[in-house]
Amino acid sequence: MVPRYSRPEMSAIWEPEARFRIWFEIEAHATDALAELGVVPKAAAKALWDWWATNPAIDVAAIDAIEAVTKHDVIAFLTWVADNVGEEARFMHQGMTSSDVLDTCLAVQLAKASDILIADLDALLAAIKRRAFEHKLTPTIGRSHGIHAEPVTFGLKMAEAYAEFSRAKQRLIAARADVATCAISGAVGTFANIDPRVEDHVAAKLGLTVEPVSTQVIPRDRHAMFFATLGVIASSIERLATEVRHLQRTEVLEAEEYFSPGQKGSSAMPHKRNPVLTENLTGLARMVRSAALPAMENVALWHERDISHSSVERFIGPDATITLDFALGRLTGVIDKLLIYPERMMKNLDKMGGLVHSQRVLLALTQAGVSREDAYRLVQRNAMKVWESDGALSLMELLKGDTDVTAALSPEAIEEKFDLGYHFKQVDTIFARVFGE
Amino acid sequence: MVPRYSRPEMSAIWEPEARFRIWFEIEAHATDALAELGVVPKAAAKALWDWWATNPAIDVAAIDAIEAVTKHDVIAFLTWVADNVGEEARFMHQGMTSSDVLDTCLAVQLAKASDILIADLDALLAAIKRRAFEHKLTPTIGRSHGIHAEPVTFGLKMAEAYAEFSRAKQRLIAARADVATCAISGAVGTFANIDPRVEDHVAAKLGLTVEPVSTQVIPRDRHAMFFATLGVIASSIERLATEVRHLQRTEVLEAEEYFSPGQKGSSAMPHKRNPVLTENLTGLARMVRSAALPAMENVALWHERDISHSSVERFIGPDATITLDFALGRLTGVIDKLLIYPERMMKNLDKMGGLVHSQRVLLALTQAGVSREDAYRLVQRNAMKVWESDGALSLMELLKGDTDVTAALSPEAIEEKFDLGYHFKQVDTIFARVFGE
Amino acid sequence: MVPRYSRPEMSAIWEPEARFRIWFEIEAHATDALAELGVVPKAAAKALWDWWATNPAIDVAAIDAIEAVTKHDVIAFLTWVADNVGEEARFMHQGMTSSDVLDTCLAVQLAKASDILIADLDALLAAIKRRAFEHKLTPTIGRSHGIHAEPVTFGLKMAEAYAEFSRAKQRLIAARADVATCAISGAVGTFANIDPRVEDHVAAKLGLTVEPVSTQVIPRDRHAMFFATLGVIASSIERLATEVRHLQRTEVLEAEEYFSPGQKGSSAMPHKRNPVLTENLTGLARMVRSAALPAMENVALWHERDISHSSVERFIGPDATITLDFALGRLTGVIDKLLIYPERMMKNLDKMGGLVHSQRVLLALTQAGVSREDAYRLVQRNAMKVWESDGALSLMELLKGDTDVTAALSPEAIEEKFDLGYHFKQVDTIFARVFGE
Amino acid sequence: MVPRYSRPEMSAIWEPEARFRIWFEIEAHATDALAELGVVPKAAAKALWDWWATNPAIDVAAIDAIEAVTKHDVIAFLTWVADNVGEEARFMHQGMTSSDVLDTCLAVQLAKASDILIADLDALLAAIKRRAFEHKLTPTIGRSHGIHAEPVTFGLKMAEAYAEFSRAKQRLIAARADVATCAISGAVGTFANIDPRVEDHVAAKLGLTVEPVSTQVIPRDRHAMFFATLGVIASSIERLATEVRHLQRTEVLEAEEYFSPGQKGSSAMPHKRNPVLTENLTGLARMVRSAALPAMENVALWHERDISHSSVERFIGPDATITLDFALGRLTGVIDKLLIYPERMMKNLDKMGGLVHSQRVLLALTQAGVSREDAYRLVQRNAMKVWESDGALSLMELLKGDTDVTAALSPEAIEEKFDLGYHFKQVDTIFARVFGE
Repeated sequence: MVPRYSRPEMSAIWEPEARFRIWFEIEAHATDALAELGVVPKAAAKALWDWWATNPAIDVAAIDAIEAVTKHDVIAFLTWVADNVGEEARFMHQGMTSSDVLDTCLAVQLAKASDILIADLDALLAAIKRRAFEHKLTPTIGRSHGIHAEPVTFGLKMAEAYAEFSRAKQRLIAARADVATCAISGAVGTFANIDPRVEDHVAAKLGLTVEPVSTQVIPRDRHAMFFATLGVIASSIERLATEVRHLQRTEVLEAEEYFSPGQKGSSAMPHKRNPVLTENLTGLARMVRSAALPAMENVALWHERDISHSSVERFIGPDATITLDFALGRLTGVIDKLLIYPERMMKNLDKMGGLVHSQRVLLALTQAGVSREDAYRLVQRNAMKVWESDGALSLMELLKGDTDVTAALSPEAIEEKFDLGYHFKQVDTIFARVFGE
Repeated sequence: MVPRYSRPEMSAIWEPEARFRIWFEIEAHATDALAELGVVPKAAAKALWDWWATNPAIDVAAIDAIEAVTKHDVIAFLTWVADNVGEEARFMHQGMTSSDVLDTCLAVQLAKASDILIADLDALLAAIKRRAFEHKLTPTIGRSHGIHAEPVTFGLKMAEAYAEFSRAKQRLIAARADVATCAISGAVGTFANIDPRVEDHVAAKLGLTVEPVSTQVIPRDRHAMFFATLGVIASSIERLATEVRHLQRTEVLEAEEYFSPGQKGSSAMPHKRNPVLTENLTGLARMVRSAALPAMENVALWHERDISHSSVERFIGPDATITLDFALGRLTGVIDKLLIYPERMMKNLDKMGGLVHSQRVLLALTQAGVSREDAYRLVQRNAMKVWESDGALSLMELLKGDTDVTAALSPEAIEEKFDLGYHFKQVDTIFARVFGE
Repeated sequence: MVPRYSRPEMSAIWEPEARFRIWFEIEAHATDALAELGVVPKAAAKALWDWWATNPAIDVAAIDAIEAVTKHDVIAFLTWVADNVGEEARFMHQGMTSSDVLDTCLAVQLAKASDILIADLDALLAAIKRRAFEHKLTPTIGRSHGIHAEPVTFGLKMAEAYAEFSRAKQRLIAARADVATCAISGAVGTFANIDPRVEDHVAAKLGLTVEPVSTQVIPRDRHAMFFATLGVIASSIERLATEVRHLQRTEVLEAEEYFSPGQKGSSAMPHKRNPVLTENLTGLARMVRSAALPAMENVALWHERDISHSSVERFIGPDATITLDFALGRLTGVIDKLLIYPERMMKNLDKMGGLVHSQRVLLALTQAGVSREDAYRLVQRNAMKVWESDGALSLMELLKGDTDVTAALSPEAIEEKFDLGYHFKQVDTIFARVFGE
Repeated sequence: MVPRYSRPEMSAIWEPEARFRIWFEIEAHATDALAELGVVPKAAAKALWDWWATNPAIDVAAIDAIEAVTKHDVIAFLTWVADNVGEEARFMHQGMTSSDVLDTCLAVQLAKASDILIADLDALLAAIKRRAFEHKLTPTIGRSHGIHAEPVTFGLKMAEAYAEFSRAKQRLIAARADVATCAISGAVGTFANIDPRVEDHVAAKLGLTVEPVSTQVIPRDRHAMFFATLGVIASSIERLATEVRHLQRTEVLEAEEYFSPGQKGSSAMPHKRNPVLTENLTGLARMVRSAALPAMENVALWHERDISHSSVERFIGPDATITLDFALGRLTGVIDKLLIYPERMMKNLDKMGGLVHSQRVLLALTQAGVSREDAYRLVQRNAMKVWESDGALSLMELLKGDTDVTAALSPEAIEEKFDLGYHFKQVDTIFARVFGE
């Protein structure tokens, strides 16, 4: 975790205190269930919750000190709780294994992290949607291969992003369901020393589903799917960030990351406004993606478990969620405040002197009876002049001055072919598909 | 694609002929819709289908020869079709762009590939389930860290695999839905020259959903999610393959990949039966996984598209699906015919002279009034003898001969603690969760 | 391997016939050494080479047919050779294990592949160098963050690429040395049944070094390093390809992939010349890179070997080398024939009306006694006008018309600050460092 | 960075204070060179070093506070230095760009990190070598596919590891050289405002080589190679860790991670000693490896630089080096203190009742004139009995009791075939190759 790429709400999930709080809740809920089943005294569960109701501070240093002796984190925690709660605490954890606590805790953490990420996506979607409707019909040139192709609108670009991040949200919801399971099943998952109803109870209390069959641990294909999904979402962030970076480059300058009115460029050069936020997002996307493979390598644990997954998760659990949360927040800010320059878009669109419309003219000539070969030749000879003028000449004007062309098409008919509206007639249809409105 | 790791049904999807057949169907269905809309003559569509009804052979070499001239694969194909169909074929492809055909074709291919993979998973699940019920109560030692822990059953191991591959199936169904979309939207996705109803029609005919908003291409986050999902499934294959490899190692030998009764080992050494199929599956899993990252890198295409994704997909499209299909088929064979040795499992389980039951004895002593410290000491001193004998001594017998122990527990009570059934009492519960029966 | 991304010389290395030829040489050289040691008759070695001298065709189908029965590729090959050579062939392979042949063969293949790749790099370096000197002093704007920064020359861009691919070559030479080892050490590497001098002899004959200690196999950290190195080289390809893609985008158009004079754009739009070669290179780079991780996962084989690495290598051995060879060849062609537009570079450089020189003016004012704050204000107020004119106004002209400025700097002094040569005075130094001339 | 997987010496390199100290040295050395060239007053350089000689504490909080205002880390640092040094400090950084400082600092950090890692490898190599000679002739079974093959010695296993980590060291030395370069070349690498001799001077002082040509930044193929190399080294760690994990599993138990004599197992079960250190190393290897791909993705920065690499390096710079350092240290401890059980190795080796020698008997029978078919049958019928007895019977004894066998081979001749020494006769040769002694 790199502090500058983290936000407090997500980071808090991964702090020791938060983990210990979840551990307590797992243990206390389990003790409730054990008491209900008559395995332990009801007073034991009550003692735990009574103490918890005092809202005790979690003394992380004290627990760490005990772990330094016991070399076992869960035992250290239980010891510390017992020191605070007293005699009744000895009934905690009965029939359970450490992994029951650790893996269920990780499930709670990942579920909470998912909730934040889902909220992040909602905020991002809202920002994108607002800009989409704002620029629903703002013309801009569509580019394939970085080369001008045909007109689109800036709103359509936003609609694409909206659709993509809507998919991201659905994938994240599925990934959350995948990891939000509870296992309280003992040393090798047989419930030899603990009743499955304890698992049912803890799962219900924590908002998790029951893991149908665990070994000592919750199977890691669930986590692999989770981190792979984060990697795909990060890739979508990279896509939108790359779009902004392209739009901001000096020669294009159709949009810019926000800078405040009074803000100065980094030197005497007023043009030096760098898309550093979206460049940063590109790098962060690489990092989130890089968690996918070690998560997949974690799946093939030996037999009923080995502990090789644990160190990997200590890295990628916090890193991938914290970084993705930060990246989604940053991207939302970028989109929300993006400076959009419709005039420059129009200027770029016209840069080729109307060449983007040449195909329509070609078609119209054909439909007016000119042979395809002749039509191509007529358009081409005018288009070449425009091209060689670097956009200084206008294709429409040249065509209107070419008598071979006007023999087939009236000036009005020619002009009509240069109508941008022709390209945008289905924008409503697309918006209805994407936004449902 | 490596021929030895491929099966014909899946490979066929990726052969040129299959691709051209899909292209034709896309074009012909689109022509139908265009005819219905009055954009092209109905006779044009009819001519296409009439020719198709003759079940014409696809002359791949002829199409390639045209491509060598035109440098454009879709144009080459259209030319070849026109050469066969005649004049009416000129109405094909009107208002469409090459990517409409290419991307929709890829969607059809990935959907077909998914269908095969789903069927593969069904076959694998059936094999696993059969072995699970066959060995539902076959005792075997559960291992954490490769070290004996507590007893499980071989059926439980299979149940874990069943649950895991059931999740794999659900993920694959979701991934299939993600990629099975149709885009017929023109050069930059605006439908400038083609009515969206054409897309609706083609999608319906091909069993695809409509891509809500495309650029020149279908967005690649869909494909990234697809290949990431294959990577997770491959990781689950690696897990089960690793389990078999462990079980077959000389010192364990609780199960073996099948060899026919008459089959000889590779030399004079009859023990030399190597788990080569599951080792091979481990390697194949690495390959399928390796497609996930380039697929994610493909997402951030520039603007409305660049063509960097294309070469990546020419590799991973066939490779990942063909290899995963082969791997699932191979794993199904391994599980279906796995030689399982319950006696050896029992022998290994007993290897530690009953040490796996020591914890239950400890608990029983405590419940019989012995202090925890004393109980630990009593068990430990007998357990150490067993341990030092390398399993030659029996913990149960030693305990029955230790008067300090028998002062608290009768021989019958001691024997009862060595009951394997104690560990298996919840197997029914787990099976009900996993198999619903 | 995707045929369209392969070249014959490299592909040939990976064809069955080539592999069998290497196998023969390994076996025959080993038989020579065994004969020399008196282990087998000298006539045996002679018989092999006599047959080989007849330049026999390798009947791959026949060998495959034998393998279909024996289920063992090396045995199938030995059988086929014996069928051809006769009785004397039975002395072949004595004391050897299949991996001795397979791994040493892979070493020969990777060494040959490296030689081609090194030659590819030499060709690429030559092309880059030629363009570097051709445009050593061609001014072009340097960009950070995609935003104009300060002037560079196009030759410097090429010098960077030259230095980078020179490093690539050194790395590849090191990687070649890493994999070019010979192991003829028997079933578990102990030379139990074969004298180490056989290994010495075969290694010397094949131009390999002796593997100091092998297990059943050559250790796979060597191959991991090899494929990781290819991944880094591919990343350098991506960098140069990305540069070209940027330079070719419509608004920049400082360079273009070659198109023949008569060649037409893809439609009536003459501007539609897409950087498809470099986009393709971007995708190919992703694929070559993707081989690095499975190669690293191959390292941790179990004990003296498992066979999980084999399937991985059947994919990445050919794929990574063939694809990288193709990519290097393609990149060489792109650079060699790159259309470079110095006028457009100059036009873009001037796009900001001379703003790139503002920092030098600021410094000059300060040195002329103007306070830093005043200097900044003077430059800034003129720079803003240029900026708002979108480059239509000239900073130099405005400054020369600003009496507050001319009070400190003469028109000549101002003009001198707009001298591009100032930026290029160290180009010779850099070229001397990079090209040694 | 995960604190529990870090060691102080390596972590210190990445702490803010250490970074600021390197920054100062870069700036002060550069000022020296500028003074020498007459660009700035010599008093300026002297003032810097005079202050530095007072060994001032680096007030990270103060610098951070300035950065919160300036939004620029290097400017914040320079401001803080100026506040401390006074007026003369204004000559610092003249003609330099932030990246000159940042990238050269990273080079120093990676070089220092490399030095620690090289020392780590030396310590590991020493531990491995000691164990190798200690067990040079300790027999143990060699395994392919996890199945017993032929005898090796434990010393040979160590020799393999020694050879592998010796390669790791050479690779790391090369990787260090790759990243240890200095760039002081200004905003776009042209030295427009700074003399290249400044770079020469700083490089020499910091023990770096001069970057022949930089853009705004040092090219990232260098760093990609560095992190890829760390990934390969991590994979070698995984290999040795996996070997230990296998050796420690209950059924094998030929070696164990150290536990102190008085140490108790985790419960009443004395056998429960888990190879948690090597499992942990397996996970850590995954993490170090995962840095390779984002590092490769960092190479293709746009034009003269974008800042996408920066966030990636803030993660992987510390994480990969700290984790690898920790892992090497942990592995050294594991090997150094590894409990090795020669008796158990012998017992396992004999587990198959001498079947590992069957091939030699077969050969001897053939050489004694028995036809190959008969010899195979004779060995096989005895071997099968041994196999079916699960190692209870002895192949040697059975053969000596088989009159068909003894008709061809005397009992002494049979016994001689069961001599382990036969397999170890080249151990000296191999050790001489690996250790040079």
